[in-house]
Amino acid sequence: MGKHNLSTKIIPTNIDYQAFLHDRVNKYLEEYVASNNKIEEAIVYALTAPGKRVRPTLLYLVSDALSLDLIKIDSIAAAVEIIHTYSLVHDDLPCMDDDEIRRGQPSLHIKYDEAAAVLAGDAMQSMAIEMLINNNFVDGQRNIELVKNFLSTIGSKGMILGQALDIEYESREADEKEILMMCELKTGLLIEYCFHAPLMIANEKNEHWKRLAKIVGISFQLIDDLLDLKQSSEILGKKTQKDKLKNKKNYPQMFGEEKTLSLLKKYKSESNLILAEMNLEEHILCDYINNLFKRKV
Amino acid sequence: MGKHNLSTKIIPTNIDYQAFLHDRVNKYLEEYVASNNKIEEAIVYALTAPGKRVRPTLLYLVSDALSLDLIKIDSIAAAVEIIHTYSLVHDDLPCMDDDEIRRGQPSLHIKYDEAAAVLAGDAMQSMAIEMLINNNFVDGQRNIELVKNFLSTIGSKGMILGQALDIEYESREADEKEILMMCELKTGLLIEYCFHAPLMIANEKNEHWKRLAKIVGISFQLIDDLLDLKQSSEILGKKTQKDKLKNKKNYPQMFGEEKTLSLLKKYKSESNLILAEMNLEEHILCDYINNLFKRKV
Repeated sequence: MGKHNLSTKIIPTNIDYQAFLHDRVNKYLEEYVASNNKIEEAIVYALTAPGKRVRPTLLYLVSDALSLDLIKIDSIAAAVEIIHTYSLVHDDLPCMDDDEIRRGQPSLHIKYDEAAAVLAGDAMQSMAIEMLINNNFVDGQRNIELVKNFLSTIGSKGMILGQALDIEYESREADEKEILMMCELKTGLLIEYCFHAPLMIANEKNEHWKRLAKIVGISFQLIDDLLDLKQSSEILGKKTQKDKLKNKKNYPQMFGEEKTLSLLKKYKSESNLILAEMNLEEHILCDYINNLFKRKV
Repeated sequence: MGKHNLSTKIIPTNIDYQAFLHDRVNKYLEEYVASNNKIEEAIVYALTAPGKRVRPTLLYLVSDALSLDLIKIDSIAAAVEIIHTYSLVHDDLPCMDDDEIRRGQPSLHIKYDEAAAVLAGDAMQSMAIEMLINNNFVDGQRNIELVKNFLSTIGSKGMILGQALDIEYESREADEKEILMMCELKTGLLIEYCFHAPLMIANEKNEHWKRLAKIVGISFQLIDDLLDLKQSSEILGKKTQKDKLKNKKNYPQMFGEEKTLSLLKKYKSESNLILAEMNLEEHILCDYINNLFKRKV
């Protein structure tokens, strides 16, 4: 057993829980992603950039709310962060969004080269699935279900389809429903997985959870798009308003800041209502979700 | 159960076995890879190009030699072909080998665009793993081992590392041992998997098989490199001698045609010796492997 595979039944509340959880997933990644060759070196470069670790944090917080031991979640948290990072690495390529700065440092294809970025992203995908399938803290059959769900989340009917639609809409019209669907596919599904995975482990089928997952997932992308529209590159650590320059369609650009803010307000109220109905209004998950709605970076 | 999931305990010998096996994997791919969106359309484009289906054919033939029902192998054959095709799609990108023709038709990034090629390749990777994990004809725990073995074959210590080294050696010296290792990683391992997977299912641990797998894997790449050096683009269906133009290092270019042919001759004798020792000299696997050593395309 690795040195960071620590049983944690309840997240301590007398500490900065976000720092505690960041540290937990970072240590896990550090232990299990070694830099034995140039491709792995590039992978480590991408993974150690200062990301917000939103997905691992959500995974751990949902697990805590469901009284799961975090030890069951470590490899899932790492896998989800690796998939998210691979999607950024490929998304930053010149033939995709062409972003030279990511998480405040040169994008992988700038630091290394485009071939390394393609290959590192490719290897990260299988690495994440490997991590997930090797999770010995969830029983066999249930773990297979977790892996299958993960594969459909990230595949040609999930995240990748969302990214393809994002590009497709640059050159054709798309309506509100399509834009929201694209948000859910490209960003929402992986965030929803951060709820679904602990729910599957806890065998919890409450529909409230699924609705909360969906709202948080879509809102996360809407907030990202709003920030892109509004903020300067110093704050975001990546080139902003690029979407506008590229004729990229997103919700605030198409329907305005006001309508986006109003939709987000609705989602925020609904998520707080759901959390209250599940008696989680005092739980750190509620605090974190409300912070996500307020985020400025 | 799908319409092409047919039990086949022995490959009929009164027919063209290669056509029979091509047809089998193609029908499986046709049934399980549907074109529901633009990314899947691009995937179908890449998968339906006239490939040689070497890997599926080897898988089926090794299985037949081990008396396995081919129904256990269909999803593995499809998965291996999908992974091979994704590696070609990414490898053909301008930032990688920059090939505009693949399998006699425009490469995916030419037919569609580079973003589609990146995304289709990405989606093919998870699709292949999904296919493998959903193989209900191999029992649970054994199937997990097949998936784990597959993931290490295609990841940052396997196929992807081979591709990265192939690029790295364009700009630095490499010795004979390094070139052969790169061949094994980038091409050999996936071919070896076509032996290892049936061996795992049959619970067969004969070391002869492993050596045969290794020889066939490396030889396949050496023959490819020889063909690249010698043949015209009409025959190969892709731009040839590109390796020379790109300062790519491969075995025949570095050590000459004669030394390559002599190494291949040695491997061919050894493989026939192994097949004879296993009493397979009359089996169609022996015929097929000898055909591979003679191949002109």
